[in-house]
Amino acid sequence: MRNRERAMKMPQVIFQPSGRRGEIPEGKTVLEAARFLGVGIESVCGGKQSCGKCRIRVESEPSARLGITSHPDHLSPFTEEEGEFIGEKERAEGVRLACAAAIRGDVLIYVPEESRTGKQVVRKEASEKTLSLKPAIRLFPVTLPTPTLKDPQGDYERLVAALSERFGLQRLEIDYPALLELSGALRQGNWTVTAAIRMEQEILAVFAGEVKEVYGLAVDVGSTTVAGYLCSLTTGKTIGTESLMNPQITYGEDVVARITYVMDHPDGMNQMRGAIIECLNGLIRTVTADHGLSPAEILELTLVGNTAMHHLLLGIDPRALGVSPFTPAVHRSLDIKARDLGLKAHPAANVHVLPIEAGFVGADNVGVLIAEEPYRRDERVLIIDVGTNGEMVMGNRERLLSASCASGPALEGAHIRFGMRAAPGAIERIRIDPDTLDVGFKVIGEERWRPEFPVTGAKGICGSGIIDGVAELYRAGIIEHSGRFRTDSATARLRLTDGKPEFVIAWPEETALDRAITINQQDVRSVQLAKGALYAGAKLMMKRLGIAKLDRVILAGAFGSYIDKTEAMILGMFPDCDLDHVASVGNAAGDGARIALLNRDKRLEAETVARQIEYLELTLEEEFQQEFMAALFIPHMSDAFPHLPPLRDKN
Amino acid sequence: MRNRERAMKMPQVIFQPSGRRGEIPEGKTVLEAARFLGVGIESVCGGKQSCGKCRIRVESEPSARLGITSHPDHLSPFTEEEGEFIGEKERAEGVRLACAAAIRGDVLIYVPEESRTGKQVVRKEASEKTLSLKPAIRLFPVTLPTPTLKDPQGDYERLVAALSERFGLQRLEIDYPALLELSGALRQGNWTVTAAIRMEQEILAVFAGEVKEVYGLAVDVGSTTVAGYLCSLTTGKTIGTESLMNPQITYGEDVVARITYVMDHPDGMNQMRGAIIECLNGLIRTVTADHGLSPAEILELTLVGNTAMHHLLLGIDPRALGVSPFTPAVHRSLDIKARDLGLKAHPAANVHVLPIEAGFVGADNVGVLIAEEPYRRDERVLIIDVGTNGEMVMGNRERLLSASCASGPALEGAHIRFGMRAAPGAIERIRIDPDTLDVGFKVIGEERWRPEFPVTGAKGICGSGIIDGVAELYRAGIIEHSGRFRTDSATARLRLTDGKPEFVIAWPEETALDRAITINQQDVRSVQLAKGALYAGAKLMMKRLGIAKLDRVILAGAFGSYIDKTEAMILGMFPDCDLDHVASVGNAAGDGARIALLNRDKRLEAETVARQIEYLELTLEEEFQQEFMAALFIPHMSDAFPHLPPLRDKN
Repeated sequence: MRNRERAMKMPQVIFQPSGRRGEIPEGKTVLEAARFLGVGIESVCGGKQSCGKCRIRVESEPSARLGITSHPDHLSPFTEEEGEFIGEKERAEGVRLACAAAIRGDVLIYVPEESRTGKQVVRKEASEKTLSLKPAIRLFPVTLPTPTLKDPQGDYERLVAALSERFGLQRLEIDYPALLELSGALRQGNWTVTAAIRMEQEILAVFAGEVKEVYGLAVDVGSTTVAGYLCSLTTGKTIGTESLMNPQITYGEDVVARITYVMDHPDGMNQMRGAIIECLNGLIRTVTADHGLSPAEILELTLVGNTAMHHLLLGIDPRALGVSPFTPAVHRSLDIKARDLGLKAHPAANVHVLPIEAGFVGADNVGVLIAEEPYRRDERVLIIDVGTNGEMVMGNRERLLSASCASGPALEGAHIRFGMRAAPGAIERIRIDPDTLDVGFKVIGEERWRPEFPVTGAKGICGSGIIDGVAELYRAGIIEHSGRFRTDSATARLRLTDGKPEFVIAWPEETALDRAITINQQDVRSVQLAKGALYAGAKLMMKRLGIAKLDRVILAGAFGSYIDKTEAMILGMFPDCDLDHVASVGNAAGDGARIALLNRDKRLEAETVARQIEYLELTLEEEFQQEFMAALFIPHMSDAFPHLPPLRDKN
Repeated sequence: MRNRERAMKMPQVIFQPSGRRGEIPEGKTVLEAARFLGVGIESVCGGKQSCGKCRIRVESEPSARLGITSHPDHLSPFTEEEGEFIGEKERAEGVRLACAAAIRGDVLIYVPEESRTGKQVVRKEASEKTLSLKPAIRLFPVTLPTPTLKDPQGDYERLVAALSERFGLQRLEIDYPALLELSGALRQGNWTVTAAIRMEQEILAVFAGEVKEVYGLAVDVGSTTVAGYLCSLTTGKTIGTESLMNPQITYGEDVVARITYVMDHPDGMNQMRGAIIECLNGLIRTVTADHGLSPAEILELTLVGNTAMHHLLLGIDPRALGVSPFTPAVHRSLDIKARDLGLKAHPAANVHVLPIEAGFVGADNVGVLIAEEPYRRDERVLIIDVGTNGEMVMGNRERLLSASCASGPALEGAHIRFGMRAAPGAIERIRIDPDTLDVGFKVIGEERWRPEFPVTGAKGICGSGIIDGVAELYRAGIIEHSGRFRTDSATARLRLTDGKPEFVIAWPEETALDRAITINQQDVRSVQLAKGALYAGAKLMMKRLGIAKLDRVILAGAFGSYIDKTEAMILGMFPDCDLDHVASVGNAAGDGARIALLNRDKRLEAETVARQIEYLELTLEEEFQQEFMAALFIPHMSDAFPHLPPLRDKN
């Protein structure tokens, strides 16, 4: 009887500030409840109580207004693991980890700003590259002879005959949805129609009358951000961009956490797949509506993404990616009907998925390749695509290597005490005066720098900020070559908390958090691990190619254009190179998706280069550990940096 | 307020004997209510109050047991049109036409046996033809090298390499659902899998381990009956047959009525499409379950049907078929994914739809062509596919003509006073003794003939019975050459009802209806119109081909094998021919679907013959009316029938 009553009345859970509410079965965690109700809560570790990012607060007052009585006892008891992330004071205030606290009764949950997967400031603007136009889908307007009793030929044969006569198109096929609209379009257009034809082979759509323009969407599905570029396939112009958070982030911040989620949850893949498809449909709706179009006017999409994103989006089980030998289900590019994927564009729309190289070096890196074309260069180039999963390409027209390393979320602001994504309130630039040790910083959303302009809204530090911060700490002599904090610096900004040193970037009154934003020893170590992996990977690639010096370095990535190249080299993210030949190119993966959308020859090029590029599995290289250890130093244990300005008085 | 109450409580309608019930908005007809609730009621005219087939009875007792109070006043008033079909006595008993009576309150409706679209006795058994086997889909078992860190190639590339090495298959594509199952199948099969590949080009499925057999389904979608043949694509054997009524029959019995329904109802096409797809899914479920298989084991389907069935099944607007110049949307054969049609077979299953010739000469006639191969014959053959829509082919290897005529439902037992489909209780054979004028008949479901064996269960007359009946009435001298009843026959079987002559086939005590089953003047006229159209068409085709005499006549059709060829020639369904060279071949359209399923070369043959055959639009022929008038006579006004036995003493 007791169980039956329970089954009949489930706990009410309300999330604030979103106000979302619903009945949740007892025993589900607050994080699961949030997912169920569509409330975004950060979860870097994927619900393993090991990252501490999913902090929420349970409210203890009776919420008469909301019709429930919330109490901390309506959650399961505080765990030892939570104690690692939540101090006594916060605990007394009702702070919990959403992944640890299970629901036992009605609760009102407050999700603080830091824990929300808010809308990121996305800087994936389409670059200004000029692309040559050779789309897969073209429009063919044609007027047909009217059928008569003496000439009662079928609509399709009539259309095909006219297309053959006027444009010389032969052996045309027609996709089923186009067949359904054919008869209506012919009669509505009074026997003048415009056929949208793919690769001169397949009729995808038949529009009544003369239609002048047709559209496509290039999409870069990043682990964190999904960016879409709406393009005219007729003019080649990018007419709109839109980006959204990848909603899969609530299942784990990086690809390993998401694959683990699939391993642990029987329905995990379907959940994540549903989430990203819904996200893409939202993106399609928004970007078309913003430009007076409808989703049905999109006739082609191109997709890039790392291997895990690729698999999860297509609905391919990604578990083999998570265990040795890390084989993907498919390398080659794919053409799949949007309707088969559940994408709501024109019902006959084609989705071209770029090929995968190897392991985690995915279609996004292929996008980078066709955008930057290292295979056409004589100079030896290193391309680093900085993202949650770092991917590198090195070489030139003679030989190209690729590699992947879990450079990880630290360079995107995660795994950092005050790390956050590039959202309003994030400190994106840091400068430390080597003499006074005072700090200048700039916050996203503010025009001017502290201290020139007093800042009060800082909430955390994003990727470019943390790169700047650690590089500047080193340049100012606050941390050593090894990354260890010096304790003799004459500034109140360097202080000990729980016996551990940290450096104050923003004072409490300069933040929106009512406490100081700092960089601590652990943060510096995280950045060292991330940059060390990239540097070591680059060194092994140079060895494999037998080259001693890089001619050019290209920093790509969702926020690549915002990394300060000098600070990155001070930090030692990559081996020495003439700084005039180091460039940030922004979202090269997204550029590649756009290029493939607008030029079908580049798809063949992508297929070729994806097959020819040699994959270097860094974990198999004997010297990796040794190179990695040396590269943990700032900028490096022993390598020289002749191109760095001699700024380092104290080091 | 009144309206609101009405809106809140809709009338309850209960149908007996099925017991189906539901709430129906006021103003809907009983026929619409029946469709909504899935109750099959005959409707030849498509709800136009002009065929009288949809007779139902409203019950007037309070049905306390069923919770409603039914009363004849809960239907709209009796109409003048209903008076044409329902006599005073029946009217007093509550008999109505379902298409005329609108619902105004709770009603209990009884659907009499004659009005039910019951399960037909289907004689579409697969014929015993030996077919040469060359299926589009074949199985390729293969064992792959296990991936290692040194060989981390993707699953798809690994499979394709092994298929290329072992079987020489090149440039393979993979359908999306197969890609989804690939990784799991490889690991479950411990790197041994069986790939099902279509046309040596497209991987449709990947099964774990070695799989020996794969299946296909050939379907003949008739206006009245849907017949399916489950075949092994590996052995070529037909392992099961199943047939169902075409549920579209509730929207109109023939193609014209159904096209009219689409014209009159905005959602008509979707309704009919949904009905036939659901029917096909039921057929797939049943025929696979009966043989221990699952729908997912069906990898290919072939479909034939007349042009209207073809369009309605595919979801193509059929309205252009209903108006001059009667153009179909497409002639050529189509390959469409079962999933795009909503058919529940293997998710990658292909549906091959045979081509259409012209107008109403559809894919079913193409099926007849590839089954009977007139294009390989020297003799001049006439093939009549007798169905609701009659299709004819004439010629030989030198030249072939096709034509279509609305020979109509009369030869299937519709538009006949006591007509019914070939269901249990139908009189299928009639003989009249020319001397005594006594009648022998045989009922479907009974082994022996009356009068040899007393029969009491006759319910009506089906197509083969009505052909026999009219031919025998003529042979016995009861009707004249013109079809008119002689009134001087010395038999009580010939009587006047309302001043009109009719001939008693079965006395009341021999029927399940408690009244006599008769053939009246109107019935004879209907048969004359139907057979006259076929004969006139054949004559015009002979003229067009310049031939004076037919070498061979083939009678095909769902019940073709049950037409008595001698009676058909006595009636004058086709011009004179040596009876030894007249044959009934059964469901040749279904045979064609099976042949196309099992032999892909025959698909090319179908495409070729469908393009080469010349379509003769009979309505455009100046002489049609004249030929038709002459052909209304039994067997003909003037043509000689040297091959008919000299039986006609009285004529």
